[in-house]
Amino acid sequence: MFKKILIANRGEIALRVIRTCKEMGIKTVAVYSTADAESLHVRFADEAVCIGPPPSNQSYLDIKKIVSAAEITNADAIHPGYGFLSENAEFSRVCEEYNIKFIGASSEMINRMGDKATAKETMKKAGVPTIPGSEGLLESVAQGKEIAKQIKYPVIIKATAGGGGRGMRIIKDESGFQKAWDDARTESKAAFGNDGMYLEKFVEEPRHVEIQIIGDSNGKACHLSERDCSVQRRHQKLTEETPCPASVMTQELREKMGAAAIAGAEAIKYEGAGTVEFLLDKHGEFFFMEMNTRIQVEHPITEEVTDFDLIKEQIKVAAGIPISGKNYFPQLHAIECRINAEDPTKDFRPSPGKITNLHLPGGHGVRVDSHVYAGYTIPPNYDSMIAKLIISAQSREEALVRMKRALEEFVIEGVKTTIPFHIKLMEDEIFKSGQFTTAFMESFDTSDL
Amino acid sequence: MFKKILIANRGEIALRVIRTCKEMGIKTVAVYSTADAESLHVRFADEAVCIGPPPSNQSYLDIKKIVSAAEITNADAIHPGYGFLSENAEFSRVCEEYNIKFIGASSEMINRMGDKATAKETMKKAGVPTIPGSEGLLESVAQGKEIAKQIKYPVIIKATAGGGGRGMRIIKDESGFQKAWDDARTESKAAFGNDGMYLEKFVEEPRHVEIQIIGDSNGKACHLSERDCSVQRRHQKLTEETPCPASVMTQELREKMGAAAIAGAEAIKYEGAGTVEFLLDKHGEFFFMEMNTRIQVEHPITEEVTDFDLIKEQIKVAAGIPISGKNYFPQLHAIECRINAEDPTKDFRPSPGKITNLHLPGGHGVRVDSHVYAGYTIPPNYDSMIAKLIISAQSREEALVRMKRALEEFVIEGVKTTIPFHIKLMEDEIFKSGQFTTAFMESFDTSDL
Repeated sequence: MFKKILIANRGEIALRVIRTCKEMGIKTVAVYSTADAESLHVRFADEAVCIGPPPSNQSYLDIKKIVSAAEITNADAIHPGYGFLSENAEFSRVCEEYNIKFIGASSEMINRMGDKATAKETMKKAGVPTIPGSEGLLESVAQGKEIAKQIKYPVIIKATAGGGGRGMRIIKDESGFQKAWDDARTESKAAFGNDGMYLEKFVEEPRHVEIQIIGDSNGKACHLSERDCSVQRRHQKLTEETPCPASVMTQELREKMGAAAIAGAEAIKYEGAGTVEFLLDKHGEFFFMEMNTRIQVEHPITEEVTDFDLIKEQIKVAAGIPISGKNYFPQLHAIECRINAEDPTKDFRPSPGKITNLHLPGGHGVRVDSHVYAGYTIPPNYDSMIAKLIISAQSREEALVRMKRALEEFVIEGVKTTIPFHIKLMEDEIFKSGQFTTAFMESFDTSDL
Repeated sequence: MFKKILIANRGEIALRVIRTCKEMGIKTVAVYSTADAESLHVRFADEAVCIGPPPSNQSYLDIKKIVSAAEITNADAIHPGYGFLSENAEFSRVCEEYNIKFIGASSEMINRMGDKATAKETMKKAGVPTIPGSEGLLESVAQGKEIAKQIKYPVIIKATAGGGGRGMRIIKDESGFQKAWDDARTESKAAFGNDGMYLEKFVEEPRHVEIQIIGDSNGKACHLSERDCSVQRRHQKLTEETPCPASVMTQELREKMGAAAIAGAEAIKYEGAGTVEFLLDKHGEFFFMEMNTRIQVEHPITEEVTDFDLIKEQIKVAAGIPISGKNYFPQLHAIECRINAEDPTKDFRPSPGKITNLHLPGGHGVRVDSHVYAGYTIPPNYDSMIAKLIISAQSREEALVRMKRALEEFVIEGVKTTIPFHIKLMEDEIFKSGQFTTAFMESFDTSDL
């Protein structure tokens, strides 16, 4: 087992990893930017190394500085958390080169799954259902129109290098094709320096349902069931839950999706924790979207319903310990609300600043993952998530009322937060029914909070 | 279902009950003494009524004032928590008289189980194993010596009205009988106004293992397995866990103890949540000690391993909803540490005062039940428990390291607490082995913390 792990991240996930390392008896090294000197991950780690100022390309994204910090502190592994360098193939490669175990996917795997067209092709070959569309990149508008005619409108074109909703356009009929193509390519070129586009069938009334998988160094994978992440605003998840509350979700479908995710992971001999994201339509058909080769923000809901510590599982497989091969199904219902320092009445505008008073909710079925404390100043340089509130209960109905109760107990003073939004969400009839799609937030009013 | 519940208690348990009521959509009324005006249970309840000053006989023990508060606020039920009036037959009777549902045992049941000799006799008749000894009260020293000769020394004499270790003496041989008898009776008379004594076989190397039961209004009972509460200091529990880690504990023994507890509860048509306390010896023999006709401080560990909300179950059976009749076994391992405002280096002397800084631990498998907050002043008038830290994990070994990790994260400044004691306990080899008895704390050094 590793003796010392450097955590190449900040915020709640850095603290999350430190917690598990402490429980496993592994020493920890925090890295931090000058903006994060007062952060809890710095205080709770055994050692801490300042790696530069914000913005992130001078610190949390600086591969050289992070690998140097690992060398100096004699860390034998690096946990990248999520975001930052967690899906950076170059970082994974440099770690390999320096003989530091990267607790994540190999550079080859990251490259393969990071390019959406390649990922889709790979999964299709493994028998994972994919959305019908162009085989690889589109060469021209004419080709695109031809394919769209075959698979029927509506279709969607997406930047192969895209993410966060950029470089993507829905096309309802042939007349709109040329403009959508031009707009998406321009946007993609500007954002990613790459205007490669692909086309696929647009899935109507989709839900975002993802399968948590773990693969080991023997090429064996297992799954820990699904998470429904359909409540999104501009492709940013706001709340997630497991099991998926869609009326089409059955144990049979869950097993089918799980088996597809495992088939995909084993086909590429995937090692580590990963997430296979699917679109689930209202008929119970599902299609591969993408694979995330890292731990997800929303991993705690899976932990609450399966009792596994996923960070521990990541570390174990990285150390070469084989998995049992058993799959796990939710024993409870769990929901996570991402508490962001944002003003939901002002278009979720970030609200950094000093937390003058903090009171965390507690009691049965309540978990809080957070790096903040009373007196902590949220820097303006990073993601605005300041806490994750995770609730588990015997049923979805009980989880919803427990979440509302816990949100109402949660006191964060000095900054605006998304707590009022989540309280309203827990009272929303559509949300309560469980029958919503990824478009749900488009018609959700947050101006009256 | 009840519309409004008055909580006749303070501190964490008042808040605990309010949380469940909120989740069930039931309105709550807090009562509070002038010393508790700033307590969270007052802030979180829908209504709050001041019932007088400390000490408790002028407020939390004043039946008239509490029933008046229920009448004024139109509460249709009262939850007594633990301690205070929770096992007061007169209080239960007055509630019945005023047509307010007492969420606890009937006055008759409290009387029956509150008197230890009667309780033991009742249980014995129901087939529950009891410690051999005097049938009812001892009449004389001569009779005591005669019985002791039959059941063999060591024996113990106990005050029938006793509790908390008062009015009880262990007798190793006949020569010490007279003095022990005189001392125990004097002590009992002073403490309880009653010097009735009974005698029983002294169980050597005992563990305190209790079974959580729930009975409904149809006379049906079920159990939710055991809790081991052997870590006690002067008969005050410090930490509890489930399942019992004793090497003699097996699934067969667990089922046998559970069946005995159910037999006892059903024999008296017990209604509500209750705990049947046993002494478990090193041979796996167990003997009825007493029955607590209320929720226990340590109930959360059972909640964490069975996923039931025991306060909700209490409220449901009080409202006449029948139980399923199924028994529940631990799916995980859970431990609770009672965090008291006491100085463990100074004989656990209470350390009331203002909490100047507070940081709660978080993450996977960590639950905190507490009524305190940064800036809160712990009054000197009440029990010194300020928080319960409850940990769950897949194994005992993981629960212990997680507990240690969480204790190390827990920051309470301004007062002394038992956190350093618990950290040392988690590192203790005997504790870690799980093979300890109720005498464990007698040789545990806390002077070096």
